[in-house]
Amino acid sequence: MNPSFNVAVVGATGSVGETLVQILEELAFPVATLHLLASMESAGSSVMFAGRKVRVREVDSFDFGQVRLAFFAAGAAVSRSFADKARQAGCAVIDLSGALPDALALVPEANAQALHGLAQPAWVCSPSAAAVALAVTLAPLRQHLEIERIHVTACLAVSAQGREAVNELARQTAELLNARPLEPRFFDRQMAFNLLARVGEEDAQGHSVLERRLVSELRVLLGLPDVKIAVTCIQVPVFFGDSYSVSVQTRRPVDLAVVQGALDSAPSIERVEADDYPTPVGDAVGQDVVYVGRVRLGIDEPEQLNLWMTTDNVRKGAALNAVQVAQLLIKDMV
Amino acid sequence: MNPSFNVAVVGATGSVGETLVQILEELAFPVATLHLLASMESAGSSVMFAGRKVRVREVDSFDFGQVRLAFFAAGAAVSRSFADKARQAGCAVIDLSGALPDALALVPEANAQALHGLAQPAWVCSPSAAAVALAVTLAPLRQHLEIERIHVTACLAVSAQGREAVNELARQTAELLNARPLEPRFFDRQMAFNLLARVGEEDAQGHSVLERRLVSELRVLLGLPDVKIAVTCIQVPVFFGDSYSVSVQTRRPVDLAVVQGALDSAPSIERVEADDYPTPVGDAVGQDVVYVGRVRLGIDEPEQLNLWMTTDNVRKGAALNAVQVAQLLIKDMV
Repeated sequence: MNPSFNVAVVGATGSVGETLVQILEELAFPVATLHLLASMESAGSSVMFAGRKVRVREVDSFDFGQVRLAFFAAGAAVSRSFADKARQAGCAVIDLSGALPDALALVPEANAQALHGLAQPAWVCSPSAAAVALAVTLAPLRQHLEIERIHVTACLAVSAQGREAVNELARQTAELLNARPLEPRFFDRQMAFNLLARVGEEDAQGHSVLERRLVSELRVLLGLPDVKIAVTCIQVPVFFGDSYSVSVQTRRPVDLAVVQGALDSAPSIERVEADDYPTPVGDAVGQDVVYVGRVRLGIDEPEQLNLWMTTDNVRKGAALNAVQVAQLLIKDMV
Repeated sequence: MNPSFNVAVVGATGSVGETLVQILEELAFPVATLHLLASMESAGSSVMFAGRKVRVREVDSFDFGQVRLAFFAAGAAVSRSFADKARQAGCAVIDLSGALPDALALVPEANAQALHGLAQPAWVCSPSAAAVALAVTLAPLRQHLEIERIHVTACLAVSAQGREAVNELARQTAELLNARPLEPRFFDRQMAFNLLARVGEEDAQGHSVLERRLVSELRVLLGLPDVKIAVTCIQVPVFFGDSYSVSVQTRRPVDLAVVQGALDSAPSIERVEADDYPTPVGDAVGQDVVYVGRVRLGIDEPEQLNLWMTTDNVRKGAALNAVQVAQLLIKDMV
């Protein structure tokens, strides 16, 4: 019988944290005791796990020496405050906030081999949902394409910003349909029936933190430290499911049949073509794979591969990837 | 005093046709008599022009010999059936349907010079809204950038497909918010809170007619017949205003200050930057210019210019451009 581990989930009441707890149960992750943690405001509630209610406690007073593995899904500030405490207590850390720049970005389908020789306790991160989706899709194509440059327009669902953003899109939409004056709260302007071309703060060069993060994570995940990546992240009026318009420049002509074959044999990819294409609502929500469609060469340019992807940003893009990383990590734990 | 011309607008009851009639009035286009035409189903109604009601008549029985200039804004089938009849009657044709492949694509800000030596009567087209927006924005940059390749993800508003599409997005949204079962009618699936990654039919290579059209029109408009253009057109749950995520590869490093200066001096462009960015709802609707924001170099790649554009697809992308083309045409008419 496999050994079991005491596990902590920090941010257990958020949408990613809650999904993560569900997935631990679905995948029968070998949990001995599950500790659910949150900031003071969210502590006290309960979350179901394996048929019983687990009380959510305050992260501030938790002794990480009790657990072997901790997921941090409570946002950047909490990771910055407590992840190092967990590591010092000998606990492996899987961060989902992106706030730990020296944590190794991991997507099992792309760079599982990077775990070999990793210092213990592990200090890793589940990357941004965009990096997960792109790594899952492009990793099986690496050996068939000499990738020179990747262009991505990432159309991000509001759920990436949490439940408040989901409620705000619904509220704004209802007000507009009822011809009531719009008063934006969570977003700084109208999100309903609109596109917001910037997600988060911009740096002096005009790139957002999320765009920079995607570039650096994807280079690590694909093992292509010098690959050029152009990325624009936009917020779209979609509740769940991120979508990506992707164009890959290659050094040699692309063999479309080989690409289609590689996508079809990848376990975490579902190709939706032949008079159809994937959509966030129709395909992504609640699913464990990345849906890929509109796979085509460039117009007058065989050294270009274009495709469209969509995936559940909360599940495959965050919670599921983190648990899959944990499944790899525990192989080295006794 | 300038001469006046008898003018016909075919498709006067559609959203583009109606806007076109408004713009003829706003810009004081020298109209002697305005003939409003439509297919049998739409004929019989009236449209206001210059303070009086103009009756919409059937295009089938119209004698184009009565007019010097005809706008065709009633879709591909009507242009195919009647545009040649108009030309044979000596009437200049400005097509907005894209159905006349030998019609010269014109955007005054980009290729006004192409009118010199044009055979009479003129046989021209106002290109797709995407080609108009991109030509207006990139034309003033041509002399400063050696453009090698253009990547575009075009996020198209439903209004490009007419009033029925606008009503369908509103209806679907209301049904979903009221938790009623969704029955798609105009679109073949859920459009509300969703992204549709294909607009129109795909060819055997996987490109849509609209994507092919954008590439061929933009090459003509920019005078760059060999430029590589990668384009993905998606339908977004936005009523009015198209948006474009654009990345331009250049042969030499881009001087950002020069680009910003060129955008700022172009009369049909408004740059929205400095802690802000343009959105279809906030900026595009009802406006005559293309809004440009997020102007920035590539990450680790100075030979790349990225930007975000948004514009009123019905007005600047179609009706206004067609009238601006007409203003150029009548300079050569006596």
